[in-house]
This record gives sequence, C-alpha cells and structure tokens, in this order.
Amino acid sequence: MYYNSFGLDFKSPFGAVVQQTPITFQFKAAPAATGVWLVIYADGQWQTPTKVALAAVAAQTYRGEFTPTQAGLYFYYFQITQAGQTFYYGCQDGGYGGTGVVYQARAAVQMYQLTVLDSVETPPQWYQQAIFYHIFVDRFANGNADGHVNAPKPNSFIYGTKQDRPLYVKDASGEVLRWDFYGGNLKGIMTKLDYLQELGVTALFLSPIFEAVSNHRYDTGDYLKLEPMLGSLADFDALLQEVHRRGMHLILDGVFNHVGANSRYFNLNHTYDGLGASESPHSPYYNWFNFTDFPAKYKSWWGVTDLPTVDKNNTDYQQFIYGPAGVIEQWTQRGVDGWRLDVADELPDFFIHGIRQRLDQYPQKVLIGEVWEDASHKIAYNQRRHYLAGGMLHAVMNYPLRQLILDVLQGKIDAQTWVRRLLTLKENYPRSTFQYNFNNLGTHDTKRILTVLAGDYQHLALATQLLLTLPGVPCLYYGDEAGLTGDVDPDNRRFFPWENEDPQTMQLYRHAIQLRHERPWLATSAFQPFYFNNTCFGYLRYADAHHYSIFLLNVGTTAQRVLATELVAPAMSAQQLTLVQQCCPRELAPGSLQIIDN
Amino acid sequence: MYYNSFGLDFKSPFGAVVQQTPITFQFKAAPAATGVWLVIYADGQWQTPTKVALAAVAAQTYRGEFTPTQAGLYFYYFQITQAGQTFYYGCQDGGYGGTGVVYQARAAVQMYQLTVLDSVETPPQWYQQAIFYHIFVDRFANGNADGHVNAPKPNSFIYGTKQDRPLYVKDASGEVLRWDFYGGNLKGIMTKLDYLQELGVTALFLSPIFEAVSNHRYDTGDYLKLEPMLGSLADFDALLQEVHRRGMHLILDGVFNHVGANSRYFNLNHTYDGLGASESPHSPYYNWFNFTDFPAKYKSWWGVTDLPTVDKNNTDYQQFIYGPAGVIEQWTQRGVDGWRLDVADELPDFFIHGIRQRLDQYPQKVLIGEVWEDASHKIAYNQRRHYLAGGMLHAVMNYPLRQLILDVLQGKIDAQTWVRRLLTLKENYPRSTFQYNFNNLGTHDTKRILTVLAGDYQHLALATQLLLTLPGVPCLYYGDEAGLTGDVDPDNRRFFPWENEDPQTMQLYRHAIQLRHERPWLATSAFQPFYFNNTCFGYLRYADAHHYSIFLLNVGTTAQRVLATELVAPAMSAQQLTLVQQCCPRELAPGSLQIIDN
Repeated sequence: MYYNSFGLDFKSPFGAVVQQTPITFQFKAAPAATGVWLVIYADGQWQTPTKVALAAVAAQTYRGEFTPTQAGLYFYYFQITQAGQTFYYGCQDGGYGGTGVVYQARAAVQMYQLTVLDSVETPPQWYQQAIFYHIFVDRFANGNADGHVNAPKPNSFIYGTKQDRPLYVKDASGEVLRWDFYGGNLKGIMTKLDYLQELGVTALFLSPIFEAVSNHRYDTGDYLKLEPMLGSLADFDALLQEVHRRGMHLILDGVFNHVGANSRYFNLNHTYDGLGASESPHSPYYNWFNFTDFPAKYKSWWGVTDLPTVDKNNTDYQQFIYGPAGVIEQWTQRGVDGWRLDVADELPDFFIHGIRQRLDQYPQKVLIGEVWEDASHKIAYNQRRHYLAGGMLHAVMNYPLRQLILDVLQGKIDAQTWVRRLLTLKENYPRSTFQYNFNNLGTHDTKRILTVLAGDYQHLALATQLLLTLPGVPCLYYGDEAGLTGDVDPDNRRFFPWENEDPQTMQLYRHAIQLRHERPWLATSAFQPFYFNNTCFGYLRYADAHHYSIFLLNVGTTAQRVLATELVAPAMSAQQLTLVQQCCPRELAPGSLQIIDN
Repeated sequence: MYYNSFGLDFKSPFGAVVQQTPITFQFKAAPAATGVWLVIYADGQWQTPTKVALAAVAAQTYRGEFTPTQAGLYFYYFQITQAGQTFYYGCQDGGYGGTGVVYQARAAVQMYQLTVLDSVETPPQWYQQAIFYHIFVDRFANGNADGHVNAPKPNSFIYGTKQDRPLYVKDASGEVLRWDFYGGNLKGIMTKLDYLQELGVTALFLSPIFEAVSNHRYDTGDYLKLEPMLGSLADFDALLQEVHRRGMHLILDGVFNHVGANSRYFNLNHTYDGLGASESPHSPYYNWFNFTDFPAKYKSWWGVTDLPTVDKNNTDYQQFIYGPAGVIEQWTQRGVDGWRLDVADELPDFFIHGIRQRLDQYPQKVLIGEVWEDASHKIAYNQRRHYLAGGMLHAVMNYPLRQLILDVLQGKIDAQTWVRRLLTLKENYPRSTFQYNFNNLGTHDTKRILTVLAGDYQHLALATQLLLTLPGVPCLYYGDEAGLTGDVDPDNRRFFPWENEDPQTMQLYRHAIQLRHERPWLATSAFQPFYFNNTCFGYLRYADAHHYSIFLLNVGTTAQRVLATELVAPAMSAQQLTLVQQCCPRELAPGSLQIIDN
C-alpha cells in the first residue's frame, strides 16, 4: 500500500485548493485488495465523513475524485479492504504530508490535511519582491546630530552608552519599575536609509511607533499619536516620503488585542486627560474592557495587568480600529504600506477580516500576522483559525521555517525530515502564503541567530543563504548583519553597533542578499526540495527553462560526493528531476552551499 | 548632697580643658558628712584612680583641685563618708553631665566625663563664620547649555527626567546592577553660585568628585583623577577660582578607608591599565589590601565586597594619601579649603593626624570627620578615639545635635532634657568643637528634614532657625531649602527641583539664614541654654554687653506665659541670668521663636 500526498501521481493538484476545485486521489493497494475508499471530513464535522469509493484503474491502482464545497480544512485517510480485513492508511505521526503508514485500527489513524481556500490571495507586487528589515525602533539609530534622546519619559532610564547591555529594571515580583531607553528614533532610520538600501533592503518593518510607556510600545497609550521619543509627525511623514522616493516600503506593527494600562483608554495612572475605563464606568472606553471586579480586576493579556485586553466584539472598538477614519485608515492614508498584526491569535477572524477590508480600500497594502505555528491549521482558544483562507492575512511570521533551518543546520533533523517538513508546509499553506510568507531567522522575540548558532559562522552563512533563497519574503532582524549577539529578551534588543559592525558577519549577509538580487526569479519561482542522504539536500527554484537555480547543500562535517541515483524528490516532475540529476555526481564540501544557475 | 558639673560653682573651668590645667571641684554634702573625695580615673587606667580629699571650706561645702596630666578622657565620681556609711555621687544614667545622683554601691556608679586636650584648636576664620551647603554633586545642577550628561559611563542609567525619583537598580541579592545618574556636574554648581550666594551660603561641601563607578563616588576609582561626568579639571579649577573670587570656600569629601573594587588600585574588572591588587600579588597595590584568600576573599567595608578596605598601616598608602605630593597635597595645592573625612571611625588616629599635618602646611584649611555619635568619647573597634584632642579633626558632623533638635520639636524630650543634653555636648566637647561643629538637619545619609517632620512647616521653621542660631557651623543639605522631601537613600538624593522650588520652604530658609547674617556674633559668641517648663526654653548667645541675643522658644501646642521665676539655667552666671529674666514675663505662642537682641 502506498500513497504520497506530495506526489502529483497521487494527489492532484498539489496542496491547497480553492473551494469547488476537483481533486484527483490515487492510491496504490496490494494485489489482494478488493476495495479502496477515500474517507474525508470537513473540519469539525466528525460524524459525517464523505466516503469516495476509488475505482481500480490499473493493477493495484485506485483512483477517485473529491471536490471540496467549502473553504476551510478537510482531513482524510484511506480505507482498504483486503482479504476480508479492513486497513487504514493515514499520514505519519506528527501530521506530516508525503508518504503515510498503514493503521490496523480506525481510532489510531492520523489524517492528512487538505487546505481549502475561499479565494486565491495575491500579495502586493512590491511585497512579493521585498527584502524586509525589522527595526526595533528604540534600538536602531538616533538621528539627532548631538545624539540627544527626544522627550525622555518621566521615571524612565536612558542607557549610559549605546554599547550597554539591555537590562530590565524590575522589582522583586518581576514588575517593571522603570522602562529603559537608548533613544533610537525616526530621524535615525532616515539617516540610515543609504546604509539599508546599499545593503539590499527594500522594505522596513517597524516595531510599534505609537505613544506608549515601554520601550517596545506593545502597550499602546494612544493609537493616534506618534511616540514623542521617536520624533514628530513631520519626521514620520518625511521618513515615509523618503522611503517611497527610494522605491522602498514601510509597514507598521499593529497591536490591537490589548492596550497599555497607562493608555488614554484605560488610564490607570491618570496620565491622560479625559476619563479612562479604569477611572469610571462612565468612561467612553469602559465597555472596551472586561472588568470582573471594577476597577481592580480585569481581563488582560496572559494575565499581565499592564496590558488590559480589549473586547474585540465591542463595535465601538471595531470602528475605532478599522472603521472609516479609524486607526488603520488614518495611518494607511498617511502612507504606510501595510501592517503586521501583533498576537493575531487573539484577534477573531472577523476582526482581522475587518482590518483587511479597510486596508483593501488602498492599493498594494500588505497584512501580515504574528502566528508562531503552522498557521494553516492553528487552533487558538478552541477555535480553528482561518488566517489564510482568503480576505484575511497575506502572510504570517514564518517561525516554523526558522525552526526547520536551525534544526537541519544543527543536525537535529536529517535531510529527509527537512524535505518532508518543508513540503508539508508547502502543502498545507495556500500557495501564495508559502511563496510569500514572512520569513525570519530571528526577531525581537527570539534569541539572535548568531547566539542560537553559538557563533558558528559557517552555519550563519548557510542560514542566511537559506533565508534569502527559500520561498518567502525574507526579513532581517536589525543588527544581525552587524554581528550582534543576544540571548532572549532583553538581550536580543541591544543597540545597533554603529561603527563597530563585525565585518565577517556583514560580508556574509551582503553575500546572501546578493544571491537573491542576482536571481530575481527567486521571489516567484517554484520550489522543489530533494535530498541525497542524511546531510546533503537541495532545492530547485524553477521559473522557466531559462531561469532556474539549483541549490545544493551539505550540512554535515565531512565532504560528500552526491550521485544522481541517490536523489529523492517526493514532489518533483521527471523534467525537474532531470535538471537536478544533470548536476551530479558532485562533490559537496562540508558546510557548503553550491548554486547551479541556468 | 549635690553636684552640678555644668555649674561654675561646682567645677571650674567649665567643660574640656587642656592638659595641666588645674580644675577646681566643689561638692555640697549633707550636714552629717565627715569626708568627701574626688575619685578620678585616667581613661583605661581603672586600677589606679587618683583620690583627691576635698576640704571643707564652708558649711556642707567641700572643695579640691585636680590637674590632669595627659590628654584624653578622665572619668570621676565623688565618695562621701556620712554617719559611718559610704555613699557615691555620680552622674545620671546615660552619661549626662549636670546634676547627678547618689549611689549606694560603688559598682553601680556612673561616672562624669572630663575631656582633656592636647591643645586648643582654632579652626580657620572663614570656617568659623561659614554657612555651608552640602552638594550631592550628581543631583544638584547640570551646567551644560543643552543639559547633556558628560561622559556617561558604560552600563549605567541616566534618569529620563530630572523629576524622576531615584531608584537603585539591584539584583535579587541586593547588588547594584547599574548605577543611576542625573548628570549634575561642576559647571552646574558654577551656574548656581549666584543663587547660593544670594541664599546666604558661604561655603560648599561637595560629595566625592574623584573618578568612581557609582553615582555617590564613595567607591573611589582614582584619587588623582576628577570624575569625567563632573567635567574637566579646568572646570574644577574655574569653579574653585570663582568660589574664591566670591569670598566663598569649598571642601571635598575624602574617602580613605576603602576604595572601589573597580578602582585603579584593586581593579576587579580590569577596567584600569596596570596591575591592580585583585589581579596579581605583584601589583604595586597588593599590600594595600588584606586578602584572606587571594583573590576571592578580602577585607571590605562592612562586608560590602564592592568596597575593599585599605590597610591604613601600610606606609605606601599613608604616603600616597598624605605624603608629599600625595592625594591631600595635590588637591589642597589646587585650592580646596579643607576636607571632610568619610567614616572617620575607620581611620586610625595616626592616620587622621597625618592628614591634618599635611593639611596644616597650608593656611586656613579645615578638617572635619564623619562621626555619628558624641565624638568626644567615641569608642570605635574597641579603641577610644581622640578625634578632637588637638591636631586631629576640627569638627565632626554633628548628628547628635540634629537628633536633639528633632527630639525636642517632636516632643520626644522635654525642655529640661534638651538643656541637659545640649550642655553635656558643650561640656564633653572641646570649646572649639562645640562652637564650630559641623551641624546639619540632614545629609545624604538621613531622611530629608521635611520628611522627618512629616511636612510640618512650623517645625521646619523652628528647626532651621535652631540650626542657624545654635553654636556650630550650619550646613544645609542641597534642596532642603527648595522643599525637597525624601525618605532614606536613595530617596533623599533627588535632583534639585530647579524652577519648581517650594516658595514657602524657600522663604523659611531665607529667613533663618538672615537671622544669622544679621547677627554676626552668633558664630563666636557664648552659648547658655535654659528652660522654663516642659515646652518653653531658650538660649543666650552672648558676645559682649552690646552684642547678644536671647532666643525664646515654645515648642508646645498651646500659648505659654513664661516667668522669670520659672527660669532654670544650670550653667549661667548671675549676670547672664538677669539678662534673660529681664525678658520675662513674656507670651510665647505655640510653635514660635522670639528673639530679643541687644
């Protein structure tokens, strides 16, 4: 018995489909088989599967068709009758696509995932081609000629020098007593646009820039006010204008699940004029929040009382965020090119959809979500999420890809597993998501890549080359290219080491970015991974017969000679296979990447 | 039986004497007495008292003479034979002078103190007349036009605003993780000299200004280098010059018991070039320190490992501090007018004497010590100290007077006790010390006076008026006059509230300072305290028949009419008594001070 969800011989078309698209399934059964059924469930409808009897079309070969009628997920397995017995064929443990296994008992079966879309997304053209740079604004650059910090906040600390290591100033119970700032600002970004553009960056993703108490500003104080430490609104407009003049783009970080306790809306410490929800039930914002015991107890993000959760079902709040002249509209009208939604898991589908609809009133805007797992099948708070079904997010932060890159470089998974997991992501995600997902090797929420890799520059070179040549929109975390190291928050938020960049790291990043710029088809071309043995693998990025590249890697510690006969490529056509085979035999040095271009 | 050490009829001369000065003792015995002896011990020589048989010179009156032959302390009591029995007359419990009590058993007797001096000190003329202002330099004023902080230190924090409340950034075990700075500097002091002079200040006492890691700089890093955050050596010279041009003076805080672990001398974190003691036994500074287990364990101030104790017996260190071209000489030559010795208790007498000798090479320099208790009889580390015996300190920080002022204002002691304690200080201290002691209502080591007084402005007014009219050199703690409040360290070290001074407090300080300036004889005139009842008391400051002032206070909460007949003045002459009696009867409003000048 055999089935391989990655192979077009077994399932066609590959991967996610739009609803009402007929899908052909083919199954290889044993000679003794007397019947094969596709058993398929619409997500959640576990009592009413569809059973499709597959027809024998050739020796041991059974084929049938299924047409999903609704967007969302489907889950399926095969049921086989053989010598009077019933067998089940499902996917391998862990929910991976590809080849499966035979189960004796129905209850044990793990099912394949089929992703069905409302519609096909087409992210903005500029986004498809982008190389992003993620700036934690307080930590990037200070554009004041004398380096002074704009508008320091009452009861805050400014670091003595830009080289200081970040430190939380907390009390014994872990509460932040004083927020710590380096004083990066918008003018600082402005002064570094030459640098960024020369590096090859085409788009900026800024950490939150609205007024707030903290240095990260995920505790929004006022959605309609630029943080004074970052500069004036004129600075912001000037930055946007200059970014656009250079053909670059800029997106913002939208934090809409919660606000700061010391916000205009909650006003715990009475720092804003007007009545905040914590001050009175007569506050215009009172119904934005869920008080379990006014004013002391209220719903907050993960129990962090500094971040009261806003009720997304509140229509006032919805209007405020994505209604006409709302937060999204005001800043988008000002010229920002898109948004990254913080903690998207906490935002109901309708809320994300509302934001997207507002955004779609403007051309070429992108909407990205923070989701840490495979967002195609994420269940958050007992709800299956449909981030990518169409009309929602264009992409998510691709932490699973980051993990795959780290795992294969560090030998935690072998090349076969790497290929299977990559293909599973490719299969589960809508094509546009997989192709244009928001990839990273690290963010303000992870250790820095050079630290994760324990300072191994060979691994760093491979990781950056993978980031820049795998499908997806690469996003560099500020300072990684300068050799910044850093453990988890706050150590991953050091100030950019201007004039003390590590030349080796910088060279390595420049090289990786060049790989992509020299091969413009990488952004849009097909992706087919393969492997030779435990440590040698590769992928084909194929645009057309004249534009393709074959990437061959050896992540092991010994030189390897890879042969065409070793090649395993679960989802490649014969024509593509030939292209790769023609590169073999080939010597692959340990820790190396080779590129064969056409 | 009766004796009163304060009364000239009983002991003459009053108080401390220079060695070889004959002292007349007189004792009133009961009619039945048959013999009276003065029993007197030189300090520590408890086996060999001198017994002076007092001669009956009138009814019940016995008189004799004793001449102390050495400097230091003597302790005495009287032994009386009466009707075959032996009685003892010593001082009241607590070691106070004045009238005593009869003891039945020798073992129970508490002895009177007699202070005997090597020589009479004459502090510098300018010091005698001074009104000091104690500046915690980081917290007073920033003289840079744009307010920037000079040379911020690596891994330190700068306060976001000058209004921020001070905060230690410590780890769970209480170690300081980062030092916190506001950025006050020498130019800042320079820009405020007009203000200080207009306020009536004539001398400055600066907290340590040598290079160090902390904001207080009691952890000296380099005794021969000005802290760069405070400005340049040129700034220092300019400040000194301008201070002197105005007829003002300036003294430094000398911290010679210990150094910072991160000093040039110990160099724990290798921040200085050259070899520090912690780095190698071959360090030129190795013998300055006492390692119990090199390099990890060493003697430090109160076990604070950040402050390794220096061995004052080390002759290299002695030379370094007070030898020719040593620390004292270099800064004194530069023009400073004196020093305050930090933790004088930790400095051996010979060490203080060495500093004083070096200082005495220059005219008009003052030496003050940090001693928290009555320094006339302090025993530190089992050693009787001789801070004030002559050739040592001119004065000490008069914390006992501060406590007396607080206690009497807050009703913790009555007027009688206040007078007795004041007279005890006057009796125990050398005259020049009592007259020119370094008085304060608060320092960087205490709560701020307005906080201690719980915001009671009436008490604050009386406290400042007492500070400015009692004997001693008043020293104001920066910002007290501006209404700064503050609990213990670090809250007592807030930044001076420029342009937000409290006018009420400011007015009250100006008034108190004016009291002194209008009466120049206050600095040098005699002091005689007296009381009328529990809450009404006063003192005579008598220069000559043409220059004297009588101060009358009522610290109670009800108006009082004080009568001449109520007057108790344990140490006043008949002539002085008359002066005070002539002011009575008099109405004293609650919480008031009246001054009768001649």
